[in-house]
Amino acid sequence: MQHSYESVREGTEMKIRIAILGYGNLGRGVHCAIRQNADMELVAVCTRRAPEQVETVWDVPVIHVDELMAWQDKIDVLVLCGGSATDLPGQTPCYARHFNVVDSFDTHARIPEHFAAVEEAAGQGGKTAMISVGWDPGMFSLNRLYASAILPQGKDYTFWGRGVSQGHSDAIRRIKGVRDARQYTIPIQSALDSVRRCENPELSTAQKHVRECFVVPEDGSDLEQIEKEIKTMPNYFADYETTVHFITQEELDRDHAGIPHGGLVLRTGYTGACGEHSHVVEYSLKLDSNPEFTACVLVAYARAVHRMHLRGVVGCKTVFDVAPADLSPMTPEEMRRTLL
Amino acid sequence: MQHSYESVREGTEMKIRIAILGYGNLGRGVHCAIRQNADMELVAVCTRRAPEQVETVWDVPVIHVDELMAWQDKIDVLVLCGGSATDLPGQTPCYARHFNVVDSFDTHARIPEHFAAVEEAAGQGGKTAMISVGWDPGMFSLNRLYASAILPQGKDYTFWGRGVSQGHSDAIRRIKGVRDARQYTIPIQSALDSVRRCENPELSTAQKHVRECFVVPEDGSDLEQIEKEIKTMPNYFADYETTVHFITQEELDRDHAGIPHGGLVLRTGYTGACGEHSHVVEYSLKLDSNPEFTACVLVAYARAVHRMHLRGVVGCKTVFDVAPADLSPMTPEEMRRTLL
Repeated sequence: MQHSYESVREGTEMKIRIAILGYGNLGRGVHCAIRQNADMELVAVCTRRAPEQVETVWDVPVIHVDELMAWQDKIDVLVLCGGSATDLPGQTPCYARHFNVVDSFDTHARIPEHFAAVEEAAGQGGKTAMISVGWDPGMFSLNRLYASAILPQGKDYTFWGRGVSQGHSDAIRRIKGVRDARQYTIPIQSALDSVRRCENPELSTAQKHVRECFVVPEDGSDLEQIEKEIKTMPNYFADYETTVHFITQEELDRDHAGIPHGGLVLRTGYTGACGEHSHVVEYSLKLDSNPEFTACVLVAYARAVHRMHLRGVVGCKTVFDVAPADLSPMTPEEMRRTLL
Repeated sequence: MQHSYESVREGTEMKIRIAILGYGNLGRGVHCAIRQNADMELVAVCTRRAPEQVETVWDVPVIHVDELMAWQDKIDVLVLCGGSATDLPGQTPCYARHFNVVDSFDTHARIPEHFAAVEEAAGQGGKTAMISVGWDPGMFSLNRLYASAILPQGKDYTFWGRGVSQGHSDAIRRIKGVRDARQYTIPIQSALDSVRRCENPELSTAQKHVRECFVVPEDGSDLEQIEKEIKTMPNYFADYETTVHFITQEELDRDHAGIPHGGLVLRTGYTGACGEHSHVVEYSLKLDSNPEFTACVLVAYARAVHRMHLRGVVGCKTVFDVAPADLSPMTPEEMRRTLL
């Protein structure tokens, strides 16, 4: 599979030309990640804002989204760095008609419909699109797939955290009297231990996680009322063991400025003539910066998208469709010698 | 990529026809694993012994290795369950000329030459061969590849254990005055903790592991001399912190009959404009039965070998070349809906 790629690039010093659409935390992370990969270059940042208002981490052309189509021949892969709620459902199908794209669409329940829209668009345009790339969906999904294929008789568990949930933080900020807030999702250790002991517990999301909230109240607001509103909020908090800490804006800015996250995927399974042997497969991530790690995954898969496109692969793909070798800048020989 | 496979199998109830060559612990494990996969059937066990002397876990035709060629049209994938030291270097190239094969060749340093021999044979025969499938090499290799592709600026660590090392157990058994022995390789917790704290330690294999030996002496043998010979044995024990326990054969049989193993692969990496954010990616296995888990990995990759062969893929491949989707019996739609 590697050969056609090698022959296309052989003897050239061409780098994979990447463009970023959307320059928030994720877009900035992609910019940083590209700098760590010698076989890639960032050719443009594309924005819906006025380009002169976008400050990039390093110097790079910033263009308005209206100009993007004129760059079609200058871009190998367009990395879409918008949000899953409102940006990507429109953007990915739209741009997959004209560019090879990769996105981090992470609304699990809507992946089938997003896939269908992107599959149609990329097929019509003869392009290669990759959706739902990141860590969940993404690396966690891969580990669920590998472990379930290897241990068909078993049970999967996913734990998230300790990490900041943007959605839950936003939900708290919408409460009257709240100036700012940060919510951490934290795995429950006893639930995790039970899984690791192969006790096969049945666990709801609320039985696997607690929620810790750091809240900056407006002056003179009713703290008791705020706490009650948080703890009884349906879907977000009502089912969970939730703790609320009131702190100052200074404390929030000093102690909770980061965007850490992570989590664990486990599968416990049984083998032998009577299922007498048990096995625990565990994958975990501890991330200082959720968007920067997601960006790193996007960039590795941008390499795969480029190679697959050169081999004539067309349509919408996911991490399940990518041979791991396509993610690495190493040659197949080097991989077998050093990593296998 | 799934489509050609689906259309070939569509409307049929054909199962993937597997044969096992070599019916030791690994072969027995493959037999058990096939029973857990509804899309496969074991059509034959092939042996170098007298077939009537082989007791299989469930009923299945047992044939002598000399008859194997006559079964070419009845076997989709031949799973080679011999050892890496003397069996597989000859067997895999030999059979890859005539069958799609998968093996668990695990002598890391000799993978490039094994690959070359199998690549030539499979190429000549128009067959699909997969080598070095298991957990290390295998799942651990995959995790080294994924993590290094995602976090190019970082450092890899592999820890083995707690588990039985067959090679080290054998080495002890060869000492004069030793009747039986079992050796456990155990990760050093403080080394593991240092890695997890992103301290980037430089660690030799001996700085990551201790060795614990359970030894059954012959009657009247010199225990002090045995312990000294173990602890000073070059390559195997001399560099390691080693403890030796003398026990009875009854105790060994009662407490150390299993073949557990496992280990961890970690990568710590750095992102951001100045590498200011650190990340820990960790994959771990805790296995009650080393051969049965290895067998499960072999069987999942046998599925992939079969599918890739139907798509016209020829030659020697490794886990790096296999799109994860090819390991699963699920349809692409089902995978995206339930695992992504």
